Amino acid sequence: MISPDHVSGSPAAGLKVHVGPARAPEIVAAVHESGAVVTGLDDADAVVWTGSPATFPAGPLPSKITWVQLPSAGVETWIARGVIDGQRLWTSAAGAYAATVAEHALSLLLAGVRGLPHLLGRRSWDRDSAFPSVGTVRGAQVAVIGAGGVGRVLLRLLAGLGAETVAVNRSGAVVPEAGRTVPFADVATVWPLVDHVILAAPATPSTRHMVGAAQLAALKPRSWLVNVGRGEVVDTDALVRALRDGVIAGACLDVVEPEPLPDTHPLWSEPRAMITPHVANPPDHLRQAFAEHVARNVRRRLSGQELLGRVDLEEGY
Amino acid sequence: MISPDHVSGSPAAGLKVHVGPARAPEIVAAVHESGAVVTGLDDADAVVWTGSPATFPAGPLPSKITWVQLPSAGVETWIARGVIDGQRLWTSAAGAYAATVAEHALSLLLAGVRGLPHLLGRRSWDRDSAFPSVGTVRGAQVAVIGAGGVGRVLLRLLAGLGAETVAVNRSGAVVPEAGRTVPFADVATVWPLVDHVILAAPATPSTRHMVGAAQLAALKPRSWLVNVGRGEVVDTDALVRALRDGVIAGACLDVVEPEPLPDTHPLWSEPRAMITPHVANPPDHLRQAFAEHVARNVRRRLSGQELLGRVDLEEGY
Repeated sequence: MISPDHVSGSPAAGLKVHVGPARAPEIVAAVHESGAVVTGLDDADAVVWTGSPATFPAGPLPSKITWVQLPSAGVETWIARGVIDGQRLWTSAAGAYAATVAEHALSLLLAGVRGLPHLLGRRSWDRDSAFPSVGTVRGAQVAVIGAGGVGRVLLRLLAGLGAETVAVNRSGAVVPEAGRTVPFADVATVWPLVDHVILAAPATPSTRHMVGAAQLAALKPRSWLVNVGRGEVVDTDALVRALRDGVIAGACLDVVEPEPLPDTHPLWSEPRAMITPHVANPPDHLRQAFAEHVARNVRRRLSGQELLGRVDLEEGY
Repeated sequence: MISPDHVSGSPAAGLKVHVGPARAPEIVAAVHESGAVVTGLDDADAVVWTGSPATFPAGPLPSKITWVQLPSAGVETWIARGVIDGQRLWTSAAGAYAATVAEHALSLLLAGVRGLPHLLGRRSWDRDSAFPSVGTVRGAQVAVIGAGGVGRVLLRLLAGLGAETVAVNRSGAVVPEAGRTVPFADVATVWPLVDHVILAAPATPSTRHMVGAAQLAALKPRSWLVNVGRGEVVDTDALVRALRDGVIAGACLDVVEPEPLPDTHPLWSEPRAMITPHVANPPDHLRQAFAEHVARNVRRRLSGQELLGRVDLEEGY
């Protein structure tokens, strides 16, 4: 643990950063280890905010402050509350939390494809009867729907495992991490070709219920569906029927519609469903990921590089 | 499916390969797609053997045959039976099967660290009580014991997930895929430092029971132990006690001592144990991986490059 006094006394610092309202030790350490010093608000050139929009200081910030780092990936609430002004540079944590969500999605896909739900329920060695449950993503075609931060990390991890990947995004603009890219408009061509599907898409009018009975029927009986985006992307009733009828091998859901999933919901008793309750990014992962993001941006600020997650007030993100 | 006639009729081939005793279609396709032709034994320049040492042709091979590709990663049985002569180049499948074993090991580690065994047994959303089960390999220290083919693939995959890695190998010669390398002789320094351990080591006199009560006690209560090497590397009785007493978070075992694990063994009823019955590389994965290996070696042979898995009779592998 680094004491604030020690940090403030660090020599030859080119950037003075206020960390508040909570002086979170992992953020203080990240600022210091990246070559800046931690100071009070009045001395600061920059602010790393660790709280909510509601606790952000009212009234104008000292004009000396030229950069504010916010802790959220999405900034719509901060804009709505008028926190973000046009007087200085503001950065969000966009992209910072992608890696752990991607890790969770990969864990779920691998568990499904490798047959773990089946194998871990056994109480006898019997190797020959176990083999048919075990697949591999190596050489498999995997579609990643949504190629934002989470999707792009996933595409890279899947390529490392020898999968062939298809990215599906709104524009169809080539995603460099993917084997090929297909626009949302042509997603119907994807379902019959791929072995597995990972949903990492936001909930928008065009993605709502994009996976329904017809799409599930176009997949293979050995296909796994993973959802770490938003529950609304899947028609849950259609999915329950498809799982019950063995239309696909299974579904791994960290997000569902509705959330929380009621205790009486049929998904809980469906053996082909693996449900984790929206835990891809637990609070302590978030803190660690935000500290890494802060470290990257402090280093960039000190070396004059463009910062990650710059907020554009006109674009609204 | 490519018919043998079509393959034999392929024009302008620089290498004639006999595939036997079974003319496995994926091997025939691999040979053909790599630019060689498939022929009978009498016409062949090379042999890809798909069977066991016992079925290998007795007596000398035609002298025209300058290269034989065997289907096993280890060749001690082939050497013992006198199959391998000094008259031509022999290659094993060493390294060919590493990727799917590494995938299985990663699946098991991620399932453990992400809390899947616990989460998948739940029947209620209750997010707050789920969070403490969920860890991440991102930023975690992971030791990989044994840095052969499987170990090196694993080290690369773990680095891609943001883990910090330690390779432990016999010589201590630097493993480029690892954050750092420690020789077997100093492995005692590794246990207290790392968060998780993956065993990918062969069974040798020096690795036998290298993980016992003292080593498990040096790990952390949140540590996972994964074994995809050989069961003999772990003292199973000590592991059962450590799991029962909560000394580590859990063990994921694709290999155990003894194998097959008897139905009455206490590991089957230990909730911290995840057991898969030596299925990291099921028969159809093996076939696919061997076909990829054959394709690589045929392309190398045609372009005059050194082949993968060259057998050295004096070294015995």
